[in-house]
Amino acid sequence: MAAVRGRVLSTTTKRAFDKMATARKITVDRRFDGMPKESDFKVVEEQLPPLKDGEFLAEAVYLSVDPYMRAYAHNIPLGATMVGTQVARVVDSKNGKYPVGQHVVGKFDWRSHTISGGLPSIVQGAGNAPAPYLAPDLKGLPLSYLLGILGMPGSTAYFGFLEICKPQPGEVVVVSGAAGAVGSIVGQIAKIKGCKAFGITGSDDKGRYLVEQLGFDGFANYKKGDLDKTLGQLIPEGVDCYFDNVAGEISSTVIKHMNDFGRISVCGSISSYNHDVNNPPKVTVVQGYMLMKQLVMEGFQNYLYQDRASEAFQQILQWLLEGKMKYSETVTEGFDNMVRAFIEMLGGKNLGKAIVKV
Amino acid sequence: MAAVRGRVLSTTTKRAFDKMATARKITVDRRFDGMPKESDFKVVEEQLPPLKDGEFLAEAVYLSVDPYMRAYAHNIPLGATMVGTQVARVVDSKNGKYPVGQHVVGKFDWRSHTISGGLPSIVQGAGNAPAPYLAPDLKGLPLSYLLGILGMPGSTAYFGFLEICKPQPGEVVVVSGAAGAVGSIVGQIAKIKGCKAFGITGSDDKGRYLVEQLGFDGFANYKKGDLDKTLGQLIPEGVDCYFDNVAGEISSTVIKHMNDFGRISVCGSISSYNHDVNNPPKVTVVQGYMLMKQLVMEGFQNYLYQDRASEAFQQILQWLLEGKMKYSETVTEGFDNMVRAFIEMLGGKNLGKAIVKV
Repeated sequence: MAAVRGRVLSTTTKRAFDKMATARKITVDRRFDGMPKESDFKVVEEQLPPLKDGEFLAEAVYLSVDPYMRAYAHNIPLGATMVGTQVARVVDSKNGKYPVGQHVVGKFDWRSHTISGGLPSIVQGAGNAPAPYLAPDLKGLPLSYLLGILGMPGSTAYFGFLEICKPQPGEVVVVSGAAGAVGSIVGQIAKIKGCKAFGITGSDDKGRYLVEQLGFDGFANYKKGDLDKTLGQLIPEGVDCYFDNVAGEISSTVIKHMNDFGRISVCGSISSYNHDVNNPPKVTVVQGYMLMKQLVMEGFQNYLYQDRASEAFQQILQWLLEGKMKYSETVTEGFDNMVRAFIEMLGGKNLGKAIVKV
Repeated sequence: MAAVRGRVLSTTTKRAFDKMATARKITVDRRFDGMPKESDFKVVEEQLPPLKDGEFLAEAVYLSVDPYMRAYAHNIPLGATMVGTQVARVVDSKNGKYPVGQHVVGKFDWRSHTISGGLPSIVQGAGNAPAPYLAPDLKGLPLSYLLGILGMPGSTAYFGFLEICKPQPGEVVVVSGAAGAVGSIVGQIAKIKGCKAFGITGSDDKGRYLVEQLGFDGFANYKKGDLDKTLGQLIPEGVDCYFDNVAGEISSTVIKHMNDFGRISVCGSISSYNHDVNNPPKVTVVQGYMLMKQLVMEGFQNYLYQDRASEAFQQILQWLLEGKMKYSETVTEGFDNMVRAFIEMLGGKNLGKAIVKV
């Protein structure tokens, strides 16, 4: 990604200026204190320079808002653009691999227009970003799926669950953040693999959606009653696999209910994201359970499986086309509503994947 | 183990009674509230019946006191004998495999005399107990080592470290409870494997022992100053392997200092043992670190490696004979001082393995 920051243009570049595009980008203006606020962000306009050879100009069509962005925002300097992935349309190009009119998926951050060299990059505080790729044939499914079930969240669910939890038919799987983008996919993969799937979520409406629409075997609303007791009644046979999106006290409670030799995939830590990164919350210690039950816990980040991304894509696309999986999106309209969509997603207002449509 | 409880003897068993031995055993009389107290235990005398065919009578010579006993005491009924392993001498036998005069290692609990059938058993609340085995040739090393570096603690250190932490030459290893029976062995294995070894311990004396006697590269006294800062200064390169005997806040702090793809072997949870088992303490959540650094944490119990115990024994015996490892014991004299030795061990008064010599 070769985003270009605003700068004073000399008169010698005046001719080039005529061909420049204007981009809007959303930057972090203040360090978040707990839940981010609209006033922590700034919408900045920026003139983009003319394309050089090898570059193309991409215009955002769909942008993703994901929980990980809250965590990564700790690592980027104030004034930097929020990190993120988008589906964009190539509107100008000096790179034959990215022709005008094609759609691409790229780590273009929270920007309306981006100049890209089509190369992989290192994003500050957000690991390695692969090169933008041309949207594959989705057999009629919406392009926005490339930001969810057919993109990073789908790949995270697929590899984070199958590679770390190693679920066996008949085993019990619990997913936290179950109605979110990744969690709702994990539960459905668990069912396809012959497991029982239970979701932990923050409302009965979401829970019913998991059971009635996605085929989960049951749910626990962590905001209602005592989760420890609820799990004891809901899952007396104990938990073999725990796919964790939230961490915190919810996870200590689930881990208490695990069976010997259970596996825990830590794919998110949403409950901590609004805390001071240098002062994470205190929760019931888990190591006693880890020891007595001989559990394995592993932290998972999707980029390690970038080389195998097409495996997850092909398999999930097939399941979707066969009707074995369902997928929901919560779509917010308008680039300038990115911040609101992000805050609502962090507050759990979304069902399935949170997306912004420009 | 076929321990026989006290009973009223009928006149028909009078002749047999003449040949009976008297055993002393130590039972749990009250549930521990925090640190165990002498008054929580009871010394009980018991007449043992005559041997049946296939049985032998063993007289305790060395008994082990270990941290795990504190945890397992939650699971045994009041009035039951404390679990544990001992080196005993066969003093009577109707089993050709266990001749009189031989020494055996057996899960004979806190008893002065035990009748054993020489079979494996299930110990209530303490997993599977293998059959007693005859003491192997220690090439002149003390028999008590069979309860420590050449027994369960040695095997725990060997497999719990090598199999779970998978240390590579040049990596940094941190051990908590470093001056204890298991920890002091782990640090020495780390050095043999070409790692840097740092110990966390509760006194400067113990720390100096680790560095000056056992070859550790450094130590942190968790009772002195801010462990987070101490670790940052002591190990600026970060931690690759963490062998955890203690859990609790100490472990959250170490995990904060781990490098990407670090491995954590949870072999003990001493900091929780004195807590109500249904109400473990609260500590800084670790899942955020697990996720960001893609760590693996695994709970280890030695019994899973019983089949490979001779591998650890042979290797550690060789290291000891070659002078590559050192070993310390804190020996308490007298069976009736078991409880005191146990409480002192839990309070960290021992250096190396805590042993009771009858």
